[in-house]
Order: sequence, then structure tokens, then C-alpha cells
Amino acid sequence: MTSAVTPAVTPADIRAAAQRIAGRVRVTPIMQVAASEFDLPFANTLTLKLELLQHVGSFKSRGAFNRVLAAGPLPEAGLIAASGGNHGAAVAFVARALGIRAEVFVPSSSPAMKRDRIASLGATVNVVDGLYDDAQAAAIQRQAETGALAVHPFEHPDVVAGQGTMSLELEAQMAPAGFDTLLVATGGGGFTAGQAAWFEGRKRVVSVEPTTSQCLNAARIAGEPVDVTVAGVASDSLGARRLGSVAWSIVGPYVSHSVTVDDDAIRAAQRLLWDRLRLIVEPGGATAFAALHSGAYVPEPDERIVVVVCGANCDPATVTG
Amino acid sequence: MTSAVTPAVTPADIRAAAQRIAGRVRVTPIMQVAASEFDLPFANTLTLKLELLQHVGSFKSRGAFNRVLAAGPLPEAGLIAASGGNHGAAVAFVARALGIRAEVFVPSSSPAMKRDRIASLGATVNVVDGLYDDAQAAAIQRQAETGALAVHPFEHPDVVAGQGTMSLELEAQMAPAGFDTLLVATGGGGFTAGQAAWFEGRKRVVSVEPTTSQCLNAARIAGEPVDVTVAGVASDSLGARRLGSVAWSIVGPYVSHSVTVDDDAIRAAQRLLWDRLRLIVEPGGATAFAALHSGAYVPEPDERIVVVVCGANCDPATVTG
Repeated sequence: MTSAVTPAVTPADIRAAAQRIAGRVRVTPIMQVAASEFDLPFANTLTLKLELLQHVGSFKSRGAFNRVLAAGPLPEAGLIAASGGNHGAAVAFVARALGIRAEVFVPSSSPAMKRDRIASLGATVNVVDGLYDDAQAAAIQRQAETGALAVHPFEHPDVVAGQGTMSLELEAQMAPAGFDTLLVATGGGGFTAGQAAWFEGRKRVVSVEPTTSQCLNAARIAGEPVDVTVAGVASDSLGARRLGSVAWSIVGPYVSHSVTVDDDAIRAAQRLLWDRLRLIVEPGGATAFAALHSGAYVPEPDERIVVVVCGANCDPATVTG
Repeated sequence: MTSAVTPAVTPADIRAAAQRIAGRVRVTPIMQVAASEFDLPFANTLTLKLELLQHVGSFKSRGAFNRVLAAGPLPEAGLIAASGGNHGAAVAFVARALGIRAEVFVPSSSPAMKRDRIASLGATVNVVDGLYDDAQAAAIQRQAETGALAVHPFEHPDVVAGQGTMSLELEAQMAPAGFDTLLVATGGGGFTAGQAAWFEGRKRVVSVEPTTSQCLNAARIAGEPVDVTVAGVASDSLGARRLGSVAWSIVGPYVSHSVTVDDDAIRAAQRLLWDRLRLIVEPGGATAFAALHSGAYVPEPDERIVVVVCGANCDPATVTG
């Protein structure tokens, strides 16, 4: 289960990232709730990290800002990225904030709402027939032509370090009482790896994936990243075909628990977060919470749990309808 | 502009209320945002008090819990209330939490979503033809028959003291840096009065009302509470015909600023809070924020502003559509 690879991101990298992006991203609030408020069959107090209130509705602006600000002088062509949605919007947001151009390649499978968001932020949107990998291939080809800075959603240490700033922030917010366990949704692994790199095993980091797209779980079983099939309600944000190698260098040593949840559990978590908290949470954003509600992860009686609610970008009608 | 009446609620009452309802209500998070993120024409940092994340989607459970827990032994018939929505849901929530009955009289003008919420919490819902006052009259008549504890939405010191616990909590959250000014939406005045009673003039409390239902502003002009007409998009939560006398005893001495916003400004604030923060906020909940966006309240350059976002209960389609 462990890897001999040196972790590609260290706490020092995350501290540097936090200094770099300070004032560029929001400090997102935490909130204590009782498990009983959500009909959960245990008595723990839970902390929700409301990262869905981040700029552009997901954690992605942390990683994108750090990647771009760490890159040094930027090319005339600006930024280029492939993304089903949230990462693309974050790259567009970063480009607008810095007054540079951005071009985003979006698979035709991604929701129109997310595409429109990217365009409304001023980026050029190119829709590519197919899934994420097809959009990524098109972006790579285009990058070779323009020389724009490629901002990958997870396969770069600066992106992962940027995502990890959430846990640096969280740990300060939870002091002095602290906590034991962080539940976090995994797509390509960059977000989960960022948190695990910050804690270096000091906290239990639980990766939660849809059963329909479980590249982290598959990597743990295989002992290395392998291709998986991708489907399900959360695939627009979590549907990565293979865990990133940067993520794997961290996940291997530092992520001790991996669980999966089915689409019904994700939908139920979305409904519950609306019914009890009036939050509109996209499927990928509700996936970590779904692990508690579905019983995929059952805390110990005294375990102090933090659940990351990490994305808001969906049509509310799909939650409340 | 000031009143000779002794304030009906003191900081000591609010401290007692906070102890009484501790663990029964949520500590709601605060969040810092830059005014520029919301296209506001000034550079201040704003703090949002996300009271819409309170139980049942509004601040109302604070006042309802304090009123009921302070009342001593409860009658067999349980609780009775009249409410267009949020207060009724809060009373139903309190009754369920305490294992007692609740009967709620709802005007036919209130949104079906809010009525359904009350029923789903286990209360008996009686729909009364007309507006809030008609429902209130029916509740008073029924209370005389059943002997249930009447929980008025604002005209009781224990309700106002309960609402004031939000500012006790807020002041602790804002320490040590502190803040200068609190923007808060006013309906019958109980919520605004609760905050003003806590601060006793130590902070500037700005009352924000819809132009279409401005009973606090009218009371300030007349020198006493007077009847006003009630209409507009926020009338289901802020549409009180006359400021409460309990509220007036506090508002008179301690609320120095009163502004109004039109329906277009409220709708624009709702859209902005969704677009930039992904929060679904009901019209009454967005009214305080609307005062900044519309220019009804313009802060001084160094003024540190807290805006209360106080209610979430509306159909998301009315915000995003």
C-alpha cells in the first residue's frame, strides 16, 4: 500500500503556496454540525469545511493561482487548460484577475452551466467531442502552437501545493482543539494529495470516490496508477481516468483510507445538504459527505471528523427537483 | 429620533438567552470578502455573517428557542404561532426538538415551499385566507381555546433576546480586530432590535428595509410605530404592518441609520450572491446586502462592515432563473 517514491509536494511547498496566493483566494469558513442533524447513526460532532464558497465555486482556484504565480514571467498567449468545468473556470478566473488571456478546452460531456461560466469569465472556450482525455489531447496540441502556459488540473506539484493550502488554513481554523480525520473527495487526486501532503500522516486522510470512477482506489489495489472507467453523476468533476503521478507520490505514503460511494448516496447527500443546510452542492462536492451518510466511512465514537464540501457548480434544480 | 422608553431587552438578557439555547442552535460562520468581488464601488473588506446556515434556514430558531425555554413548564397543547414562513418553521423545529406539539397559522399569501417545510417538521399547518395579520388573528382565537404557548415572531422580549444572540456570537468571532457597522434586514423589528440591544450603540446598526414595507423607517419618522402598507418580493419574510413595541424600545435609542431598497435591488443582490458565492438567499435574506449594492448605504473608506445574510428559504429557480 505504500510507495517508495518521494512525495512530490512538502509542507514547505504548501506554506510557500499559501504566501503566494494570499489575498487571491478566499479563506473559506468552517461550521460545526451535529451528526444527528443529518440523521447519521453516530453522535460525533462534525466540522464542515465550506470550500464550495471559494472563488468560482470550488477549491480549484487555489491550485490554479499557485501554478500560475509560481511559473514566473507568463507567455503572451496566456494560459491554456483542459477541463470539464471547475478547473477551467478557475483558470479563467485567474487569467482575468491577472489581466492575461486564457483558452480552455472542454469536453462535450461537461454541463453547459460550467462551460457558460468559463466563457463569462472571459476565457476562450473550445468544446471538444468526447470526454476529458479528448479535451486534454486537443489542449496539448494547441499549446504546442501558441506557447501558452499549460495549467493541468492535477498533474503538477504547484497545483497540488496550491490545493494543499486548504488544509494549512483548516488546521489554523481548528486550533487549538484540533481534529482527527479529514474526508475528502478524489478526482485526479490533486486535491486529496494536497491535503495529505500538508498533514504527512498527522491526520487521517480518507479519500472518497464514486464507485463509478475510482482511480485512487484502483491505484492502491494495483500498487500504481492504472486506467479505470469513468461514469456516474459526479464524473464532470471527479471523473479522472487515472490518478496523477504527483498525487500518487503523496497518496501512497499518506492516504491510509479509501472508500467509495454509489450515485444514489451522492444524490442523497446533495438532497440532505440542501434540506438541512440550504447549500446547493454539486455531486463531486457532496461525495465526501456521502461517505458518512451511506456508511462507507463509520467514525469511531470519539473521532473528530472534518468533511470537505468542495464544489457548488450545478443547476439547483438537479438538487431540489 | 430617540425614545424615552426603557429598552425591553438588555445585554444581560441576551447573555442569558445564549446560555439557554447553547447547543440548540448553530454557531453560524462568518466569511471575509472583498467589495470588489461583488462589483461594489468601494474598497472595503466586508464580513458576511452567514446566518442563513442556521437551523431551518433563518435566524428565527434563536428567538423561538429562547422564548420557549424561558417560558417554564409548557402546556399540554404545546406551541402556537402565526407566520408567513420562517418563524413558523422555527417554531415547528423547536417543538420537534423538545418533543411537544405545534400548531402554525399561515397566511394564504405565503410561499408553498415554506408551508410544506413547516408541515414536514411535524407541526399542524392551518392556512388562513389573507395576510399575516389575518393568520395572527386566527392564532390568537385558537390559543384562547387550547391554552398553547403563543410564540410571537417579534413582539416578546425573550424572542428579541434570542435573536440578539447572533451579535453576541458575532462579536466573539470578530475579535480581536472588531468591526464598525452591522447591516441587518428589518421585518417586524425583532431581529434588528436584538442586535441593537446587544451593542447598545457600541456599533453602528443599520436597518435595511424594502421600500415596499418599511415599518421601522416609518416609526422613526413618526416618532412611534405606525401602520404601513406591505408589498414586494420580500414581504413573505419582512412584511410586517407595524414595528413591534418591544423592538421600538430598542430601535429608538440604538438604531441610528435606516435605509430602504427597492425590489430590483433585492433581486440583484440575490443574483449576485448566487453568482459570486453560490448561495441561494431569499429576498429578505439578501435585503441587507442590497443596501450596499444599490448604494442605499455607502460606507466610509475605513469602515469595517458586517452584512447579515439571514435567510435561505426560497425556490432556487427564483434566484437563478
